[in-house]
Amino acid sequence: MTTVTVLGLGPMGHALAAAFTAADHPTTVWNRTPGKETSLDVTVAATAAQAIAASPLTVVCVRDHRAAQSILDTDALKGRTLVNVTGGSPRQAREMASWAADHGIGYLDGVIVATTDAIGGPEATLFYSGPADVYEKHRGTLAALGENAHHLGEDPGRAAAFDASLQDMLWTSMSGVIHMFALAKAESIGAATIAGHAKAMLGFFPDMIDLLAAQVAADHYPGDAGTLESTAATMDHILDAIRERNLDNGVLTAARTQVRQAIDAGHGSEGFGRLAALQ
Amino acid sequence: MTTVTVLGLGPMGHALAAAFTAADHPTTVWNRTPGKETSLDVTVAATAAQAIAASPLTVVCVRDHRAAQSILDTDALKGRTLVNVTGGSPRQAREMASWAADHGIGYLDGVIVATTDAIGGPEATLFYSGPADVYEKHRGTLAALGENAHHLGEDPGRAAAFDASLQDMLWTSMSGVIHMFALAKAESIGAATIAGHAKAMLGFFPDMIDLLAAQVAADHYPGDAGTLESTAATMDHILDAIRERNLDNGVLTAARTQVRQAIDAGHGSEGFGRLAALQ
Ligand SMILES: NC(=O)c1ccc[n+]([C@@H]2O[C@H](COP(=O)([O-])OP(=O)(O)OC[C@H]3O[C@@H](n4cnc5c(N)ncnc54)[C@H](OP(=O)(O)O)[C@@H]3O)[C@@H](O)[C@H]2O)c1
Ligand SMILES: NC(=O)c1ccc[n+]([C@@H]2O[C@H](COP(=O)([O-])OP(=O)(O)OC[C@H]3O[C@@H](n4cnc5c(N)ncnc54)[C@H](OP(=O)(O)O)[C@@H]3O)[C@@H](O)[C@H]2O)c1
Repeated sequence: MTTVTVLGLGPMGHALAAAFTAADHPTTVWNRTPGKETSLDVTVAATAAQAIAASPLTVVCVRDHRAAQSILDTDALKGRTLVNVTGGSPRQAREMASWAADHGIGYLDGVIVATTDAIGGPEATLFYSGPADVYEKHRGTLAALGENAHHLGEDPGRAAAFDASLQDMLWTSMSGVIHMFALAKAESIGAATIAGHAKAMLGFFPDMIDLLAAQVAADHYPGDAGTLESTAATMDHILDAIRERNLDNGVLTAARTQVRQAIDAGHGSEGFGRLAALQ
Repeated sequence: MTTVTVLGLGPMGHALAAAFTAADHPTTVWNRTPGKETSLDVTVAATAAQAIAASPLTVVCVRDHRAAQSILDTDALKGRTLVNVTGGSPRQAREMASWAADHGIGYLDGVIVATTDAIGGPEATLFYSGPADVYEKHRGTLAALGENAHHLGEDPGRAAAFDASLQDMLWTSMSGVIHMFALAKAESIGAATIAGHAKAMLGFFPDMIDLLAAQVAADHYPGDAGTLESTAATMDHILDAIRERNLDNGVLTAARTQVRQAIDAGHGSEGFGRLAALQ
């Protein structure tokens, strides 16, 4: 089995190292603060450079790109492959890729869409971007982290861009779910009761996402299933209800502002999808 | 069959009148602007008061509560039942109910969760609140609008509160979906491609909603599946990606502000559900 190096043994780095060893890859680790390798069957290197030198493939997983840069040794990495699964923006990924190219380092940017306990299993999704040949070379080893892995293309920022887009939807929606519970509670509606209705409403989301995707692809936003004018009226009712209970209304107010701007720009009789073209 | 009166023949009022006649209820209508009864097999009254006098049950469906109040004749309504399905806030519903009680009018506040073409069919959801005996008396007639009808309790504001909570989740989530498409497009990711991943991510939403509901019910927000600190870091990555493409970031910035306030208040190691208790 191929040897692998993992830099960073926070909760996620620890899970990655455990998954590599579970798949029988001899694994070398290094972490800024020593002693984090507990319960792992790994070789501990004294320095990051020594850890990198032990394997053809190094996976780095630390707090942020700045921390990653601070521990990566260009001399040790030269001629080897670096897979960076540290969270970051598309631009940060592209910057790291061009830094790697300047130093003769094979580079893939990776994104982990999973909690630590899902790593290695079917629920973990992993996105990679960067040169296809580098991905193909290490794909078998990386499969230890999760079989549900996608190489998204050569642009090193693409994995981070996919992730940011999906997380944008996720965390904005989470804010909506939380606010639903807050408003329901203020109105003495039980959490389980409103949750049941919310899950029923979720049933329409896949079709709604497909409909919006088709509108965005065609750059055409008909208002027949509801106009921005009618959305504005609905949002005003919700905002009234929120204000009546003195709840925070920042998120929906920001969404309402975007609708107002679209209407002011002459799109009031078009559908909500129009907002995707106006952000 | 019971006779029914519908006041307001906008797109929704028209659909309601059509559903009553389709279920063989003799229907009388009135609309501020004449001539909107096209294609309906109804009796057109000359005034709102005359329309009300024609039936034991009047359904009003106009732009907003102020418009509804302006057309409702207390003398004509006395001793009859009024079902108001005009969109409004919980407080507006409660105010209308107390006005109705003052004038000896049986009152139900209703909410239609459906588009006009779904009225009368299985996809239309209707919420009602107000006195149970009033609902029981007219339930059979109201079933013409949709069998999926729920009487939510005696508090007349309850239907509007359910609706506001659910629409809060819906439109906040819709904003997230739209922003996902905008960011993906700015990063040259196809709408159908990102939609496919988004639908896969939706698969976790029902469990996530149940988990949050349980936390809200117990008023206990453990951070083991992710802390507010880690959510803050994720949101910062998304905001970086949004800023790199000069997109509007108002909605997620507002959500990020709520996370910051929760962390500042000492909840950084708790889960996202904590926000429901802090709005
Ligand atoms: N946890 C998850 O569920 C999850 C999910 C998806 C993606 N991720 C990503 O995985 C990465 C790691 O996350 P994590 O959960 O393991 O925890 P984390 O707190 O983000 O990172 C902890 C790791 O970063 C190291 N580190 C922090 N600052 C450093 C510095 N200046 N120099 C060197 N090392 C530094 C820590 O070393 P010390 O031990 O010395 O402090 C530790 O190894 C993050 O980028 C995160 O976005 C995590
Ligand atoms: N359409 C939907 O998909 C939908 C879904 C759920 C709930 N609703 C609710 O249903 C209600 C009606 O919606 P809608 O779609 O039919 O269109 P709308 O534009 O909200 O309302 C149009 C109706 O309101 C009347 N109206 C407006 N201002 C008036 C005033 N000052 N005095 C008297 N009548 C007045 C109009 O009469 P004129 O013809 O004389 O202008 C017309 O009958 C709204 O409260 C909405 O929230 C609609």
